[in-house]
Amino acid sequence: MQTKKIAPKTARPAKKMPKTAIFVEPAKGGVTAAAGFFAAVVKAGIKASKKTDLAAVLSDRPAAAAGTFTKNAIRASSVDWCEALLPSAKIRAFLCNAGCANACTGDQGVRDTAGMAALAGIELGVPQKSVLVASTGVIGKFLPMEKIANAMPKLAAALAATAAAGTAFAQAIMTTDLARKESAVKVTVGKGTFFIGGTTKGSGMIHPNMATMLCFITSDAAIDSTLLNTVVKRVVNKTFNNLTVDGDTSTNDMVLVMANGASGVSVKGRGEALIAFEEGLFTVCNDLCKKIAADGEGATKRVEVNVKGAKTEADAQLAAKAVATSNLTKCALFGNDPNWGRIACAVGYSGAKFSKQKMSIELCGIEVFKNLQPVAFDQKKAHALLKKKVVGIDIDLGLGDKMATAHTCDFSYDYVKINAEYHT
Amino acid sequence: MQTKKIAPKTARPAKKMPKTAIFVEPAKGGVTAAAGFFAAVVKAGIKASKKTDLAAVLSDRPAAAAGTFTKNAIRASSVDWCEALLPSAKIRAFLCNAGCANACTGDQGVRDTAGMAALAGIELGVPQKSVLVASTGVIGKFLPMEKIANAMPKLAAALAATAAAGTAFAQAIMTTDLARKESAVKVTVGKGTFFIGGTTKGSGMIHPNMATMLCFITSDAAIDSTLLNTVVKRVVNKTFNNLTVDGDTSTNDMVLVMANGASGVSVKGRGEALIAFEEGLFTVCNDLCKKIAADGEGATKRVEVNVKGAKTEADAQLAAKAVATSNLTKCALFGNDPNWGRIACAVGYSGAKFSKQKMSIELCGIEVFKNLQPVAFDQKKAHALLKKKVVGIDIDLGLGDKMATAHTCDFSYDYVKINAEYHT
Repeated sequence: MQTKKIAPKTARPAKKMPKTAIFVEPAKGGVTAAAGFFAAVVKAGIKASKKTDLAAVLSDRPAAAAGTFTKNAIRASSVDWCEALLPSAKIRAFLCNAGCANACTGDQGVRDTAGMAALAGIELGVPQKSVLVASTGVIGKFLPMEKIANAMPKLAAALAATAAAGTAFAQAIMTTDLARKESAVKVTVGKGTFFIGGTTKGSGMIHPNMATMLCFITSDAAIDSTLLNTVVKRVVNKTFNNLTVDGDTSTNDMVLVMANGASGVSVKGRGEALIAFEEGLFTVCNDLCKKIAADGEGATKRVEVNVKGAKTEADAQLAAKAVATSNLTKCALFGNDPNWGRIACAVGYSGAKFSKQKMSIELCGIEVFKNLQPVAFDQKKAHALLKKKVVGIDIDLGLGDKMATAHTCDFSYDYVKINAEYHT
Repeated sequence: MQTKKIAPKTARPAKKMPKTAIFVEPAKGGVTAAAGFFAAVVKAGIKASKKTDLAAVLSDRPAAAAGTFTKNAIRASSVDWCEALLPSAKIRAFLCNAGCANACTGDQGVRDTAGMAALAGIELGVPQKSVLVASTGVIGKFLPMEKIANAMPKLAAALAATAAAGTAFAQAIMTTDLARKESAVKVTVGKGTFFIGGTTKGSGMIHPNMATMLCFITSDAAIDSTLLNTVVKRVVNKTFNNLTVDGDTSTNDMVLVMANGASGVSVKGRGEALIAFEEGLFTVCNDLCKKIAADGEGATKRVEVNVKGAKTEADAQLAAKAVATSNLTKCALFGNDPNWGRIACAVGYSGAKFSKQKMSIELCGIEVFKNLQPVAFDQKKAHALLKKKVVGIDIDLGLGDKMATAHTCDFSYDYVKINAEYHT
């Protein structure tokens, strides 16, 4: 992530250049990067590995909060719980357990989610309905509520505003993830400065058209919850909704955002501060997407599918996602094989409109397909470039000026191994 | 495949029982099982393996013909060629090459497809536009037309009506397939008897919503090409369109059917003969689907996903296909893991309507999920049953009486290996 001075062609919706200078620069940490946020973790005994598995983030004051939620019709009760509460101006905490998804658990599951919020509320000294609950892990198992109840006082006592506490939170929410994933930015707009930081978990069961995995983001900007809701949905649609690991849409996925206003910088419905906030949120979300793609189950490389020349943004997304989801393409990338035929094939079945005369494909910057015909290229060079840790696929649909990027990874033996051996 | 006397609940559309006895019984062979059909193969030098790679089926008289075609927007010119000709009452031959898909080959590809039909027409003594051309293999390479031209006389000279010639055809059209796939039935309706036989190829790049792979079917029933077209589309929708190996919809896929009337049995727009023909065609197509699923790239077992209790047949198909396409479910089946959570998750994101109260899932005949809650079951027994060569997943959506079956296979290390190493 690099410091950017805002210029056109970013994710922000405004057309004109801001009058005030806006800087979005990398910052340290994750959920505790912004002022007024505390995090804590504890070993409750939910994970078989006996690692930390219950984690909380507390805001020192009521925060505006919004989220996006899985579109899977079989959703965990935690998703229903959060969606019913959001958007809200009065959220105080995230509570997340790993090791048990509490999904497909019927009425008992609903009671257990409410129970988690109630237990956290008591220990944190906040209302039950100000606690956003998230669960991740095995589907179809009940939560060990007694263990959670026993662990809650220790969790509350451990709350700290340090970067280390944020990192511990990022660690505790992991399941099959191999790497912690945190990202934060410092945003300067005129004389004001605020932070946006977050963490995410997920490396399988990840696919567009929903909130994709668990992601927790905090900011000390002051923003109305309705406006926050609009901005979060817009940014998630450009980032997490264009991310896929395996095409499976999970039952538990959410992106949750709290903004508590501790910085004193106010973000209103228009103007530079909104542009700055949206750019900052986009930067954090986009960075976390890249980290998930790089840590996709069994991944040996991260893949960015950039589509331009689309008539509509929806077309660009369709094409980018189809290529990012194609098992055949992803196996070829694992084999360092410049098999552009599979990429063209995926664009063909994506449903996106494209020009047969003008459509072209570049693989690692090498043009391989144009005018519905192969282009002679240096196979050896392509093979070598495909071995890199990050591979780019650039597709021009030849029809317009809309674009989209999808994030994914290659598809290796280890994806199968991890998912054949994962314990039910 | 077992001999069946027709009873209700088959694939046929008629509601009342036929007055005349109808028998559909297994028969030997494939594309030459029906009278008046000849097959031949030759080594043209298209496959790198130097195996037989150019194959033809000739009808001794003009045949009614129909087909279904891939919905991929980037289609091979052979698909365009066949779709432009069909349905037709004047088709004489199938011509198929393996080793080169002639897809993404622009204007040259269009000329080459027409060239193949012209060359075959000259040698077989039939009109160019009575030859249905199909190609399979690597995308983005031009056909070696000189080799094909040189091989054509030898191909024409080899034509024979024997079962061995049909089997040789089934062998020549294979690419990454490990097994030949043929199926045939003898259909008796009153005093009349006719045959339907076919062959198919394909083990990767196979996914619903198009003709799915190459399939060639012949029959000596007499049927009008418009009626044949209707019946073929109806049967393919219940069979090949519910088949998936990897979710990738190919550029070249077709199901092509010729019926030449050599049996003298006439199939009209209503009545027993139509019921018998449709049942026979369904039996052959369903059997070939099972054979493709069993030979799916890297498959260690065949999987049948049976959905019942749906409000509409479209809902049943959505749910069955989503489960059959889920990488996570298929990895779990490879690992003999009764991970019903992934099945429930796939039903959840399928878009199919279902009752949360009444939905249930059986795995290998064992009930594992009901009322959105897990059911206690014998894990050891389930694990043992999952090791069998054929695994059944039965899902009741709890809303109505419509049903559908999807065919697939498990997802193994070898799928990745085959597709990472396949040469471009």
